[in-house]
Amino acid sequence: MEFILEDISEDEVARRRDVYTPLTDTVRDLVDAVIRTEVGEDALADARQRIAAIVADLRSEQMDGPYGVRHTRENTGMAWGNAVIGVRNALAPSLDVEHVDDGVRSEFTLGAAYEGPPGQVHGGVCAMLLDHLLGNAASYEGACYTGTITLRYLRPTPLGTLTARAWVTEETGRKRIARGTISDAEGVTCEAEGVFIVPRSAVGGPAVRWSAG
Amino acid sequence: MEFILEDISEDEVARRRDVYTPLTDTVRDLVDAVIRTEVGEDALADARQRIAAIVADLRSEQMDGPYGVRHTRENTGMAWGNAVIGVRNALAPSLDVEHVDDGVRSEFTLGAAYEGPPGQVHGGVCAMLLDHLLGNAASYEGACYTGTITLRYLRPTPLGTLTARAWVTEETGRKRIARGTISDAEGVTCEAEGVFIVPRSAVGGPAVRWSAG
Repeated sequence: MEFILEDISEDEVARRRDVYTPLTDTVRDLVDAVIRTEVGEDALADARQRIAAIVADLRSEQMDGPYGVRHTRENTGMAWGNAVIGVRNALAPSLDVEHVDDGVRSEFTLGAAYEGPPGQVHGGVCAMLLDHLLGNAASYEGACYTGTITLRYLRPTPLGTLTARAWVTEETGRKRIARGTISDAEGVTCEAEGVFIVPRSAVGGPAVRWSAG
Repeated sequence: MEFILEDISEDEVARRRDVYTPLTDTVRDLVDAVIRTEVGEDALADARQRIAAIVADLRSEQMDGPYGVRHTRENTGMAWGNAVIGVRNALAPSLDVEHVDDGVRSEFTLGAAYEGPPGQVHGGVCAMLLDHLLGNAASYEGACYTGTITLRYLRPTPLGTLTARAWVTEETGRKRIARGTISDAEGVTCEAEGVFIVPRSAVGGPAVRWSAG
């Protein structure tokens, strides 16, 4: 498995982030609009043609495979294709993960694209986000891998603004146990506990500031 | 929680599906292109403006909230906004779930947008898909809810073509235990076991052909 070194300054990372963030946000907006639009079929066909033309332009120069996982010499992680936090990935709710005293915390808003039961977040989306957050909490010395994770759904999670938290409860050798929750304004809706494994290659390596999931 | 009756014929469902499927597929293509493009910043800014114009056109007539979960009088499910199977949701890999003798089965391809570690499916995406598939296997008498689910990651799941399976192993009252796997060409990469709950309101109700997640 290969991590790619992007030999650029921290300022250049920030500048590129500012270029891609509004583009990705606009694609997120498009995903939502395609779910919720009520325009007629001619307008839908027209939209499809215009989107296809943009795709062709963007693909005129593109990398061969997926984005991969990159980091700078200063160990800033650039998991910009990542399914949960990718700056260039419109599927990702693009969690902004904050490091707090006892672990990590993120506040985010989930709209129509994350729906399962009517008006509620898909249980699988809760699982995806918690897997990432717990992995992130466990990854303070380099990216960890999920060994096992158990999710417990206490009640439905409504679409809207939510908070997720994760923290490490135990550490033995390369094994870490992490716990976490998703909450709405009324309290916890879903909780998780998982076992995360630090790859042998990562022990004593640089503390890159991300989790690759 | 409200399910919406779409009072339309099965032919009309099929016709609408044929209208939305290519549009959603083109948006999926755009999501992939934004992750992988290497065009310059002027071209990115131009793409963003063109996408924003399409969003404005689609939003000129739109429903207020999320899509919700709809079904026809013939009990064909139209979870078209669903995060995993939504015909109108470009975030969904749009699993085509086949009912087989002992449960459900789906073959699908995951590209750059589902990446976690380099070249591999994000562990959280595996969790999301298995939650949905197990729920689907358990939902043969109406949508079930996940109570708990445990994922075990045996080895990395490569991006590419994958198969997922799920089946019910036990049923007691409104509680069902389901198991499932994700496999690549070499065998199982990730397995899951979960407890699913049939809502009181669904017992004896119509067997709508979907799981809402």
